[in-house]
Amino acid sequence: MLVVKKFGGTSVANKERIENVARRCVEEYKQGNQVIVVLSAMGKQTDVLLDMAKDINPNASRRELDMLLTTGEQTSVALMAMAIDALGVPAISLNAWQVAMNTTADYGNAKLKRIDTERIYNELENRKIVIITGFQGVNKYDDYTTLGRGGSDTTAVALAAALHADACEIYTDVDGVFTADPRVVPKARKLDVISYDEMLELASLGAGVLHNRSVEMAKKYGVQLVVRSSLNENEGTIVKEDNKMEKMLVSGVATDSNVVQIAVEGLENKPGVAFKLFRHLANHNVNVDMILQSVEHGGKQDISFTVTEEAAAEAIETVERHGETSLKCDNINVTRDVAKVSIVGAGMMSHAGVAARMFEALYDAGVNIRQISTSEIRVTVLVDEKYVEKAAQAIHDEFSL
Amino acid sequence: MLVVKKFGGTSVANKERIENVARRCVEEYKQGNQVIVVLSAMGKQTDVLLDMAKDINPNASRRELDMLLTTGEQTSVALMAMAIDALGVPAISLNAWQVAMNTTADYGNAKLKRIDTERIYNELENRKIVIITGFQGVNKYDDYTTLGRGGSDTTAVALAAALHADACEIYTDVDGVFTADPRVVPKARKLDVISYDEMLELASLGAGVLHNRSVEMAKKYGVQLVVRSSLNENEGTIVKEDNKMEKMLVSGVATDSNVVQIAVEGLENKPGVAFKLFRHLANHNVNVDMILQSVEHGGKQDISFTVTEEAAAEAIETVERHGETSLKCDNINVTRDVAKVSIVGAGMMSHAGVAARMFEALYDAGVNIRQISTSEIRVTVLVDEKYVEKAAQAIHDEFSL
Repeated sequence: MLVVKKFGGTSVANKERIENVARRCVEEYKQGNQVIVVLSAMGKQTDVLLDMAKDINPNASRRELDMLLTTGEQTSVALMAMAIDALGVPAISLNAWQVAMNTTADYGNAKLKRIDTERIYNELENRKIVIITGFQGVNKYDDYTTLGRGGSDTTAVALAAALHADACEIYTDVDGVFTADPRVVPKARKLDVISYDEMLELASLGAGVLHNRSVEMAKKYGVQLVVRSSLNENEGTIVKEDNKMEKMLVSGVATDSNVVQIAVEGLENKPGVAFKLFRHLANHNVNVDMILQSVEHGGKQDISFTVTEEAAAEAIETVERHGETSLKCDNINVTRDVAKVSIVGAGMMSHAGVAARMFEALYDAGVNIRQISTSEIRVTVLVDEKYVEKAAQAIHDEFSL
Repeated sequence: MLVVKKFGGTSVANKERIENVARRCVEEYKQGNQVIVVLSAMGKQTDVLLDMAKDINPNASRRELDMLLTTGEQTSVALMAMAIDALGVPAISLNAWQVAMNTTADYGNAKLKRIDTERIYNELENRKIVIITGFQGVNKYDDYTTLGRGGSDTTAVALAAALHADACEIYTDVDGVFTADPRVVPKARKLDVISYDEMLELASLGAGVLHNRSVEMAKKYGVQLVVRSSLNENEGTIVKEDNKMEKMLVSGVATDSNVVQIAVEGLENKPGVAFKLFRHLANHNVNVDMILQSVEHGGKQDISFTVTEEAAAEAIETVERHGETSLKCDNINVTRDVAKVSIVGAGMMSHAGVAARMFEALYDAGVNIRQISTSEIRVTVLVDEKYVEKAAQAIHDEFSL
């Protein structure tokens, strides 16, 4: 059996944790399996390097930033090879060039294009544990690139796909995927299984365990994932194709406070107004989330949308710049203390009244809904940030998760 | 003009020093020159990485150590590219793979075999300052290697040779090559010019400014070196082919306290005894320096030799292991508080009496000589460590350096 195991930065933050990961990899190996290990940089090393760079040049080129950042994973894979070797099992570390992990040219946010498997197979045939740098690649200019957010998970899934691995385990500091954030809803329960689509919705809602990019790739190539803790032996959550005969109605509640609502009020009710607004935002690379267009009143209408806090400044500036000229709006209203609360479940579409039950539970709990957005397997409401816990709790109880 | 500038770890130890080096490189660039910069890892970074490795696995493989250590120079070249870019001059960092710097397979002590110049020339043609990792290479297995002691100097000289550079400047924290160590002999004087051979003798005597490996390569390829300070604008010392009409008699005094004398006493006076002793030492990779074989007395003889302090434990163990069996010696005598004092000068051979003047100066100063060794351009004496300064001072005065 060929197993890909991915460990994040906190799992390799110091000597003891590196040795803990080494032991787990050796256990897997001693069961007769072929083992690939994908690692992130140690602890906060990536941030340390970014701070050094910012101190020297606040506008450093992405090419040189990637040259700098890729030293982080190279350090952790080399140390891991030494730790595994110290346990008497042969190991070898490989960086993105040595594999090679070929990516697009975009520094800082490259996409994986092709993975050469020859060297990996050779090392596996020599009965070595192969330890590979996550998050990084090389482009056609023979330069290092990094994959952006969720990069190491993506590396692990891509390797599992390229090598036709029998398992791809994503180790993290929680036990798996939960029905809600345990810090928000104490009764939250760990899920044994979740579908790719449900996981995608949870990931895009900021559930934090897996980045949606890696889930998308897993779905595309049919790589079954296991999300589990590096700190205990618990089973974790399996992420796989949905093939349940009877789908679970609602599999989880997700909350996300990293939200700013921007309302553009008093727009002329003419064709193309919404198009213009979102074209301006797209031109400035602002990703817009929930969109609400009001009913017309007196020849005018309002459009409100949400963005992440990081994108808020750019979004507000863009709207303000075009507000008087091309958009001709009366007012721009920014609300920062809002949050998204969502239910996710593959069975939602085929069960009428799920959204209604959610709204009723919120009404009973005294939580006012500011905005609503839905997909096939998700219902999201925007509420005041202070109601997040109350809302999540009420929904969790309503659906007996 | 194409200039290769090499800066050691102390010259790039922190932000301020990196910026200082960046300014010097930009000045060179703005004179219309093409600039190649070779860097070591920042400050004590290599030692920090080695300590991390030792903590995790005291017997870490050299292959993984090199994988770990090469992150050090990659970090400094990336930061330097950012610092130069911040001064408004385009720069690009390249590591050993990107160049590529091809070496032999030996991890930890690889030899440079061939440097690909294509990418470097391309970047120079784009009017970029090209910043290259010193100390590291890649071998035929697509693995990183390191070049061992003096590695970054060797990288700089090899690049200067491969690129037919017009100048190769080795920046350090002293003003150049001195007639003696200024900490030992306060009247020591900086030399303006020194020949390769003299520099080789000084380097091998531990004068510390340049490693002999880089000087050997410079001599072989006729690369003229300049050794100068990164902290001021002083001229430094030129190291080049000896073409003076009248050679300087003695160009410098070198001292080295990193010496242990090992005397193997009471060996049988038979052919092959010395051969056996040094064959055993060579088999254990012990480099032997000064050798003294005593005159026979009563069918027995003594052989004494010196090694560095680092090699002493292995040398003593080797001699002890074979002392009773194959060597059949009576006694092994180890003296640790000894030091070498040497005079170096290309004109020495053609001037009779240089050695005699040295010995007389030492006699007058009351310094006892334990052992003598000579080459064409060098005379070295072994003295008690406590006499080092007195000896160096006396010789320096005798030859009016």
